[in-house]
Amino acid sequence: MSQEPYAKLTELAKETTILRDAAALLSWDQETYMPPQGVAYRASEMAYLSGKAHELFTASQVGDWISACENNGFTPDSPEGANVREWRFHYDRATQLPVELVKEFEETCSLAKAAWSKARKASDFAAFEPYLEKLISLSKQKAERFGYEDHPFDALLADYERGARTSEITTLFQGLRSDLVELIQTISERGPRVPQDLLEGNYPEEGQKLLNQEVAEALGFDFESGRIDTAAHPFCSGVGPADTRLTTRYNTADFTSSLFGVMHEAGHGLYDQGLPGEGHAQPYGQAVSLGVHESQSRLWENHVGRSREFWERWLPRAAEIFPDLKKLSVEEMFYAVNQAHPSFIRVESDEVTYDLHIMIRFELEKALFDGRLKVKDIPGEWNRLYKEYLGVEVDKDSNGCLQDIHWSLGIFGYFPTYTLGNLNASHLMTAVFRERPETKTELEAGQYLGLLGWLREKIHLQGSLYLPMDLMRNATGEPVSPKAHLDHLKERYL
Amino acid sequence: MSQEPYAKLTELAKETTILRDAAALLSWDQETYMPPQGVAYRASEMAYLSGKAHELFTASQVGDWISACENNGFTPDSPEGANVREWRFHYDRATQLPVELVKEFEETCSLAKAAWSKARKASDFAAFEPYLEKLISLSKQKAERFGYEDHPFDALLADYERGARTSEITTLFQGLRSDLVELIQTISERGPRVPQDLLEGNYPEEGQKLLNQEVAEALGFDFESGRIDTAAHPFCSGVGPADTRLTTRYNTADFTSSLFGVMHEAGHGLYDQGLPGEGHAQPYGQAVSLGVHESQSRLWENHVGRSREFWERWLPRAAEIFPDLKKLSVEEMFYAVNQAHPSFIRVESDEVTYDLHIMIRFELEKALFDGRLKVKDIPGEWNRLYKEYLGVEVDKDSNGCLQDIHWSLGIFGYFPTYTLGNLNASHLMTAVFRERPETKTELEAGQYLGLLGWLREKIHLQGSLYLPMDLMRNATGEPVSPKAHLDHLKERYL
Repeated sequence: MSQEPYAKLTELAKETTILRDAAALLSWDQETYMPPQGVAYRASEMAYLSGKAHELFTASQVGDWISACENNGFTPDSPEGANVREWRFHYDRATQLPVELVKEFEETCSLAKAAWSKARKASDFAAFEPYLEKLISLSKQKAERFGYEDHPFDALLADYERGARTSEITTLFQGLRSDLVELIQTISERGPRVPQDLLEGNYPEEGQKLLNQEVAEALGFDFESGRIDTAAHPFCSGVGPADTRLTTRYNTADFTSSLFGVMHEAGHGLYDQGLPGEGHAQPYGQAVSLGVHESQSRLWENHVGRSREFWERWLPRAAEIFPDLKKLSVEEMFYAVNQAHPSFIRVESDEVTYDLHIMIRFELEKALFDGRLKVKDIPGEWNRLYKEYLGVEVDKDSNGCLQDIHWSLGIFGYFPTYTLGNLNASHLMTAVFRERPETKTELEAGQYLGLLGWLREKIHLQGSLYLPMDLMRNATGEPVSPKAHLDHLKERYL
Repeated sequence: MSQEPYAKLTELAKETTILRDAAALLSWDQETYMPPQGVAYRASEMAYLSGKAHELFTASQVGDWISACENNGFTPDSPEGANVREWRFHYDRATQLPVELVKEFEETCSLAKAAWSKARKASDFAAFEPYLEKLISLSKQKAERFGYEDHPFDALLADYERGARTSEITTLFQGLRSDLVELIQTISERGPRVPQDLLEGNYPEEGQKLLNQEVAEALGFDFESGRIDTAAHPFCSGVGPADTRLTTRYNTADFTSSLFGVMHEAGHGLYDQGLPGEGHAQPYGQAVSLGVHESQSRLWENHVGRSREFWERWLPRAAEIFPDLKKLSVEEMFYAVNQAHPSFIRVESDEVTYDLHIMIRFELEKALFDGRLKVKDIPGEWNRLYKEYLGVEVDKDSNGCLQDIHWSLGIFGYFPTYTLGNLNASHLMTAVFRERPETKTELEAGQYLGLLGWLREKIHLQGSLYLPMDLMRNATGEPVSPKAHLDHLKERYL
């Protein structure tokens, strides 16, 4: 009898999952194959499907079912316990905000996105300022409604990284920053190890597709349950329990941009393909957080893809496809794909400087939310931090605080997950080398399935049984710290 | 006040249309890009989406709204009047069958499809017979529930060709048959005008894609609102009001099979692209029937694509892409793409013999439904008719009465729409040449937009304002008869 509400919730979850997956396919199609004129109707379709899922899940009896399940005594880390925990979280999130606030927020986002787009073109922060002001004010109201124990920003972080605390992220980032700044200085003083344009050449798209496919297959990406297509903005989308879609784009002057892009997205895809399939329509079977998702993409892209061993295996193959590469040694290739230069633009930055871009955004977001920073002061503070952390003088706001779309979409608290991904990736690699010493030999031999198997067991198959921090500690035996990542960067770049 | 139910119905139609369109995209994706392992979940998604649309539309208050609208005094051929007429029809269809009958039918179809597949492989009609027996018995029950005035088969026809009567189709087909049989005999006695394998060659896929695209564009297919992809079974799917997707497959030994396939599907697609877009989510804005849809595909494929004038314009272009074609004259090309040979297999048959394949199926279906024919006697009767109409001896049931999948899916009454499509196409062409004499010169000059514009006005933009027979009479000024089609075939083949 007490099982009945649980059964109702799992039935409901099947419905909302199908609606969500159908919307995911529609979105994938929009980015890959949809003809241009399809865009207006497609937007209305996706809004309807996600609205329907929301409507079904926020019906008042759903709250009663969840309450009943909370008294069922499920073990917290059982699938049932994790499901109930996540249903509660998402139900509260979906019902805690008054309809007027949700509506005002959505309308403001829509206006803010358009305003940002224009402001960035004109490099005119003042034109974006009132929208950002309003979005932050509304987001503060959201944070108050959601509630938090410690810092209002925690309430927003939870949408992207469940259980993460502003204070903990601050500590993690502080432990990283000065060493990173120092490392970048050392690298700059040493100067480049190979000419920056060493890889510039002519790499036909067909050859890139072939190499991408072979590499993704070698990593273990299952093309019976997935595919790679072309899109303007690379992404990975799981549209079903056995259907994981990667996208990439091709730069014929540099094959590594697509290759690393595919390895990155394949990292996301391997995670999706490794989730417990039978839990696809339940919260416990979902990927647990953006920071963990990003750990998988960064691990395969950076730790595997940019390693010496990787190029020992793949440079000969790449040179068969692109004969100009025959002139390069593995050492040169390794240096060419591991260059670090301070710059303005986050999305063009490298493995060493990337996290400083993130820290700047995190510090600004935090200060905006605890009232220490006013919106109008963002440009000055942005530029000051870029000078201090990266040593670069931002020339204009379009290259500075207007470069990212996130804030204009009302997304605050997302940026830190990128750096959490980097830290998690290094932390996992340290653990796997310790637990499975044979991993090193395997990677040298171009065998990736041992590493994948370990990630499957420790991360992928765990789904959302545990919150991210617990998952990472269970997987590695110790809490995540900046040490592994700093060691990795120093070894690679010094 | 009396408008309120109508407003509710149009709101509901928006929802069910989105659900139907989302399912259409999922289905398109399944045939084009979906990875193999996605199939099981995809089936459950599509079942959910169409089930949800069915559930929303069959709620009891919907029947009340429709009844209220029927008293609103809408003009029958206004959008509102047509909407109410179609809502009534579909609501009755969706609610007239008891749930147990629907379930039993679906389960039987599922078993029958598997049994048919095995039976066809083994050419063993007896293994399929009990399933077909049951499907016909259940379909008779369906017909009784739906109701009919004249012939039980009318009730089934209505799913594919609204308003069509078994008696009228019988008359139309009788007026066609003896002339067709005679024409085929004459053609056979004369012998082929060019060697049957004249076009056999090597036509790389890339070249075929280029030619297909150029031809489809010339016909007026809008690639801003549509696309062409590759699929095992060619089809056209409208997945939104400005999103029409064609598929084709490539035979590198004969480029015309893909080209005519694309012209056929583009004919369907031009119809979809020409429907009144603002009525996309309402019945009046939908394509009216399969027989009218097929008239558009056959018109562009056969009347335009297989004409002398077409090849005067396109043979030079095709020969630029495929230089081997330079040796052919337009006359040879015209003869090569207009060959007629009696054969066993419907889907491989030509413009002249095709309708006889259809008539045989229609006569058998009719006889099964009015009790003159027993299921066990199908093979004998099938083979007798093939001998009589087409002069061929069917060697085995897999080449005979087991060749088509339709019956195993519980589809009875679909076949005649193919021949209605041919008759409608010829009837429309006769009318346009009469009304727009300049059409002939335009087609000679490779200008197709005049013809398209006429079809847009007479057919496409009419949507479902009128039932098919009325639409055809309005468009051409006279009821459809076999004459135009026989004239067309004689002119082309004699």
